[in-house]
Amino acid sequence: MISKYRESGVDIDAANRAMRNIGEWIKATWGREVLSDVGNFGGLFEMPARYEAPVLVSSADGVGTKLKVAFLAGIHDTVGQDLVNHCVNDILVQGADPLFFLDYFASGRLEPSVVEEVVKGLSQACIANGCALIGGETAEMPGFYADGEYDIAGVIVGAVDRGKLIDGSTIEPGDAVWAFPSSGLHTNGYSLARKIIFEDLGLGIDDTLPGVAKTAAAELLEVHRSYLPEVRRLRERVEIKGLAHITGGGLLENIPRILPEGCSVEIDTSVWETPPVFRFLQEQGGIDDSEMYRVFNMGIGMIVIVGGGATGGIECDGCRWEPFPVGRVVEGGGEVLI
Amino acid sequence: MISKYRESGVDIDAANRAMRNIGEWIKATWGREVLSDVGNFGGLFEMPARYEAPVLVSSADGVGTKLKVAFLAGIHDTVGQDLVNHCVNDILVQGADPLFFLDYFASGRLEPSVVEEVVKGLSQACIANGCALIGGETAEMPGFYADGEYDIAGVIVGAVDRGKLIDGSTIEPGDAVWAFPSSGLHTNGYSLARKIIFEDLGLGIDDTLPGVAKTAAAELLEVHRSYLPEVRRLRERVEIKGLAHITGGGLLENIPRILPEGCSVEIDTSVWETPPVFRFLQEQGGIDDSEMYRVFNMGIGMIVIVGGGATGGIECDGCRWEPFPVGRVVEGGGEVLI
Repeated sequence: MISKYRESGVDIDAANRAMRNIGEWIKATWGREVLSDVGNFGGLFEMPARYEAPVLVSSADGVGTKLKVAFLAGIHDTVGQDLVNHCVNDILVQGADPLFFLDYFASGRLEPSVVEEVVKGLSQACIANGCALIGGETAEMPGFYADGEYDIAGVIVGAVDRGKLIDGSTIEPGDAVWAFPSSGLHTNGYSLARKIIFEDLGLGIDDTLPGVAKTAAAELLEVHRSYLPEVRRLRERVEIKGLAHITGGGLLENIPRILPEGCSVEIDTSVWETPPVFRFLQEQGGIDDSEMYRVFNMGIGMIVIVGGGATGGIECDGCRWEPFPVGRVVEGGGEVLI
Repeated sequence: MISKYRESGVDIDAANRAMRNIGEWIKATWGREVLSDVGNFGGLFEMPARYEAPVLVSSADGVGTKLKVAFLAGIHDTVGQDLVNHCVNDILVQGADPLFFLDYFASGRLEPSVVEEVVKGLSQACIANGCALIGGETAEMPGFYADGEYDIAGVIVGAVDRGKLIDGSTIEPGDAVWAFPSSGLHTNGYSLARKIIFEDLGLGIDDTLPGVAKTAAAELLEVHRSYLPEVRRLRERVEIKGLAHITGGGLLENIPRILPEGCSVEIDTSVWETPPVFRFLQEQGGIDDSEMYRVFNMGIGMIVIVGGGATGGIECDGCRWEPFPVGRVVEGGGEVLI
């Protein structure tokens, strides 16, 4: 006989408490477009008047098994940043500015302190990207997730004027291919990286990775970069024809997503130094080049394709990372030639 | 030594195959506002011109442990409908029409046939609600989910003209409270219901629930209703002051979310018959009334508050379910008096 719902594993009071605590982090992201209050059924965002013919651009993402590293390290304020930045980049490649973000957090039993850390990360990245954290679902699902584990996902909604959409359609042979450096694995290749580091090599989360000079925790929890400020500045100076966010599938599978018919891309991998973590993983895992370039970003977080007249790199005042030239568009059938 | 990424548990080819198969279900939801192609980084939705001062209304939801019933039954085409309809109702209560939806599907290993069934459900509900399934993330996360299990979540984005927002602010004592019937548990109270049915009583998924005359699978997988068409019709005839979607927290916690200061609501529970499934759960679980009304919807899926002049029910041509009067707004401190 049950007289209390919480006996079946759901503690509604704990959920309510966490919701109140994270309310402050959420509200810190709100500008005047947000008309909601925390607790409304839906989040309200007034459509900005600055768009003439607005197209809403949206994307859903998760963090994948990078979360397992956060669990091992007991660090929960970076994965929310990964999630937001990943989403920001996914709509940035079509020219859109972020407007608002909603998250989904699910665990077997809510640990309010963990939820708060996750939401803090979401909030910090939303503020950095000028994006309102306007809603979310915090789900307590007994029997779904192992103790101390959770999953998070999110959806971003942004906007761009129809005439300013970036879709790659004007890309042509002779165009220059530039790259922005990644901060590490970003959010891809973690199942393989974890297997090599923790299973095959038996290293611990606080062990230093040989040849990398950082601990597993520090290297593997590097925050996925947002390229929003950099791409905005770049766009003021050059015509950006296409942008590819280098996520799962790496350079080999993400660049073809924006290439029009008749175009391939040649990448000269000798122009940048593969970051130590990828060299370490390749060597320790005995992975061939083509697999490495399909699973990992190999040091490149964002690819920019600009008109052929634009040569060399670009000096970018106030940019945290400058793009550098890595190749050229050539005639071909949508391939990436490395 | 690893030479193939899939040896670590991620099969990129299987993921690609599933993505292709579900593409057709996704595209079936697209109207002319959708400018994307499946495979774009972000989903593109042209903002409809019919709004003068558009407010975007969004909501994130999951399905919760109702998913465990779907796993037991091996039925995967209803939970997507639950998710979409839940989200539609959450923005409907603020007066918004759905525009588009994005989903998140995560499992330990993608089973393409299961993903397709889930997306089929999402697609069918999106079509029924006039909503484009514009994006999503399908995540394969080895070690996160038990074999044969998955989690899904979604975000809906809708719009309403600022002047047509429904926010409950004009609710006053004397207003009438109407209710739309639910189809069953909708998506709340499943942890408790499953404990009573499967653990305490030891019933199987295909056993008939005593006093309910339906199997556990049939009763527990009843699709969460969308009240969009009904509320649209109702709004043509009466001034709707407030709407409350009856989800987790039941009538007791959801109605207060829309009440302005100085108002409470009296509900006369004798005017509708509590559906058999709730009577069965209360009796078998030995649960008191206040707990029942906080955990379950008790047969009410949506509450409508209309001006006091509107009395009685309403004949609603073409509505699948008609609202019926259940109470009245009274002076008070934001309580639901049952």
